[in-house]
Amino acid sequence: MGKKDSIGIGLLGLGVVGGGVARTLSRRAETLDAQVGCPLRLRKIAEKDLAKTRASKMDPDLFTTDPAEVVGDPEIDIIIEVLGGEHPAMEYINEALGRGKYVVTSNKEVMAKHFPEFLSLAKEKGVDILYEASVGGGIPLIAPFKQDLLANEISTIYAIINGTTNYILSRMSSEGLDFSSALKQAQELGYAEADPTNDIEGIDAAYKLVILAALAFHIEVRPDDIYREGISRLSSRDFRYAKELGYEIKLLAIAKEQDGVVEVRVHPVFLPQDLLLAKVDGVYNAVQVEGDLVGRVLFYGQGAGPSPTSSAVIADVIDVAQRVNRGVKITPTLRLDPTKRIKPISEIETRYYLRMSTVDRPGVLAKISNVMGDNLISISSVIQKESDVSADVAEIVLMTYPAKEQAMQQAMGEIERLDVVREISNFVRVED
Amino acid sequence: MGKKDSIGIGLLGLGVVGGGVARTLSRRAETLDAQVGCPLRLRKIAEKDLAKTRASKMDPDLFTTDPAEVVGDPEIDIIIEVLGGEHPAMEYINEALGRGKYVVTSNKEVMAKHFPEFLSLAKEKGVDILYEASVGGGIPLIAPFKQDLLANEISTIYAIINGTTNYILSRMSSEGLDFSSALKQAQELGYAEADPTNDIEGIDAAYKLVILAALAFHIEVRPDDIYREGISRLSSRDFRYAKELGYEIKLLAIAKEQDGVVEVRVHPVFLPQDLLLAKVDGVYNAVQVEGDLVGRVLFYGQGAGPSPTSSAVIADVIDVAQRVNRGVKITPTLRLDPTKRIKPISEIETRYYLRMSTVDRPGVLAKISNVMGDNLISISSVIQKESDVSADVAEIVLMTYPAKEQAMQQAMGEIERLDVVREISNFVRVED
Repeated sequence: MGKKDSIGIGLLGLGVVGGGVARTLSRRAETLDAQVGCPLRLRKIAEKDLAKTRASKMDPDLFTTDPAEVVGDPEIDIIIEVLGGEHPAMEYINEALGRGKYVVTSNKEVMAKHFPEFLSLAKEKGVDILYEASVGGGIPLIAPFKQDLLANEISTIYAIINGTTNYILSRMSSEGLDFSSALKQAQELGYAEADPTNDIEGIDAAYKLVILAALAFHIEVRPDDIYREGISRLSSRDFRYAKELGYEIKLLAIAKEQDGVVEVRVHPVFLPQDLLLAKVDGVYNAVQVEGDLVGRVLFYGQGAGPSPTSSAVIADVIDVAQRVNRGVKITPTLRLDPTKRIKPISEIETRYYLRMSTVDRPGVLAKISNVMGDNLISISSVIQKESDVSADVAEIVLMTYPAKEQAMQQAMGEIERLDVVREISNFVRVED
Repeated sequence: MGKKDSIGIGLLGLGVVGGGVARTLSRRAETLDAQVGCPLRLRKIAEKDLAKTRASKMDPDLFTTDPAEVVGDPEIDIIIEVLGGEHPAMEYINEALGRGKYVVTSNKEVMAKHFPEFLSLAKEKGVDILYEASVGGGIPLIAPFKQDLLANEISTIYAIINGTTNYILSRMSSEGLDFSSALKQAQELGYAEADPTNDIEGIDAAYKLVILAALAFHIEVRPDDIYREGISRLSSRDFRYAKELGYEIKLLAIAKEQDGVVEVRVHPVFLPQDLLLAKVDGVYNAVQVEGDLVGRVLFYGQGAGPSPTSSAVIADVIDVAQRVNRGVKITPTLRLDPTKRIKPISEIETRYYLRMSTVDRPGVLAKISNVMGDNLISISSVIQKESDVSADVAEIVLMTYPAKEQAMQQAMGEIERLDVVREISNFVRVED
């Protein structure tokens, strides 16, 4: 039936993911060939690190240290890019698409930074770029958006898409750890890197949110467009109050659309305890999508690791290979709409949790409430704990009704200037 | 680009789901046409109930009371079957496929009973039958199996796929209700029917499990092949013990494959409280899939209702319409393997929870333990509560290590014949 004798595959990178992909291609060759309809042949692997090459115990003739040799091979139809990072991945993806080759990538950073350009080039050259592995590891996400949810107008995406931070927050929640102890635990277990900046500052989550927002809302977002706060300022006190108020704290990647304007932001949030998303613990990932027909759906699984990522890469390879074998040229179906506007963080409206340290004197709460009222922010609940009398310090926690971010920022500025307030210890947005 | 001026759609049934589908096709016409690449035209609707026809306020010329007229219309390319039930849905699906029309159905019963025949006929006629809406309402399930999880060897499916029973069990768990009160609540809220047999006896879940097992394991299962127990014998005492032991009770549809032999069963189970699946409450559905690469993934959402079901039906319609428009004939890719064997319930191995009423005398536990030991079943924990001394009754609860079902049944028979045992009040399988 097929139009080809075999389909040539080139692999860029034999790191953790690349090694998993190579192993799966080889171990499951028979099943994969049957699914595609003709043999898949891994023809070349680019890897600079000769130790990795040797450790793989694969045929030495497969290897080159020069990715250009893989991308330029006329017998290769599909390039799998698992180098990670922006450069030189971007250059090789462009080169591959430019030569009319299909590309499968697990690289969220390069996708987040160059998605629109890759789509245009693929369209122009009559090929496609697939990226299921770039978000949520092996959790099926891209295909559901491209197919199953097509009839829906999607309003909201809430995503836990960084396993490191979710692990840290889970430990803080379940064991009352402070941030630095939880981070240390994560590092010891290999869940966090020595330099954890990319994870704990939400940079990794923002990359993935660029891709999710494009899929759900067809909006062209750049990583720098995303409002971003990390998790390092959360303390064990915040978790204690959250529990008392009926919430869990999670780092969420959020995308919402209303009237053609899209919010994209990554920051810690209070989530109601009874929401399934709030119960996603440890290094797991979950993406909750809300559509007008389907209501709330949630996808859950391991967001990283060589095996789950290989699962997604190979699924994309099968999808492309089936097309190549049928001789069907199918270019990207996703059309980004450049007219969609991104809402500045100052314009969003949400509820807030606010924790303050004040002097321990009558009338303090009244002064704070006045400021909130002046800024048209309604308070939904207050906790004032027994205070440390000797130190003349009290702690006040407020939850608000929905309010504009701008008003809230204004109010917080005024509250900080009150002589009875020592500091605003923290504030966290509340979503439900 | 397209090969067709328009694609004709015929709808069989204007009930709750059919009404939702008709509304979505009309309200979202512009978007759908853009996605397909040519106009979708709803040409005929078969509905016997003229009150429904009138209430729909749609063009009267669209309607007929005779489904054969829809299926026979040469201008119709895609038949949407939302009649429900086995007959006459089966006959019209066969007729439609036989005439070379594509079929989209939300009908789990007819699919569960005639899946293999429909697949063969569709293959023979060069068309396809799509059924995303038949399992889990709008939750994307079929496409993930057909595409995203293809690289995996799937070992286990645990599915909460009946909202009615999950609602009842959630109420029993959270409020300590007994079964009949929880059922009554569900009926008052419209979550359970006046005759709830299909739901509470696991018949509905078994239909859906036939389809999931076919997708995951390519096995040909008939509804009667599925071992089935309902939820009516669960009592509030079982929920209390479950909590104490760290479990929730859920009605699960289970499919597992090992060495080409497949278990398919629907019954209540003890699930560890910390498993995300155990936290799925109310009328929601969730399907947990375990694959060798991807690990555990879970899909969650509303399993029923006109809007979620429409979401799935329309997604299938778009998928088919895109192919029709491109002139691509793609027949079913699923190949059922008739050599796969179904494991009889007596051969399964799992852990058990066992609750017994005994006389209140020393040595009772020893006698029971001896029977278990004789049948090579190890006990992992025991609860013996303060007893009702006046009535000379004690209650003993056992949890076992993994044991063969056959051995367990044998042991339970022997225990029931012990003179110190009044009755085995309940036993529930334990999964993790």
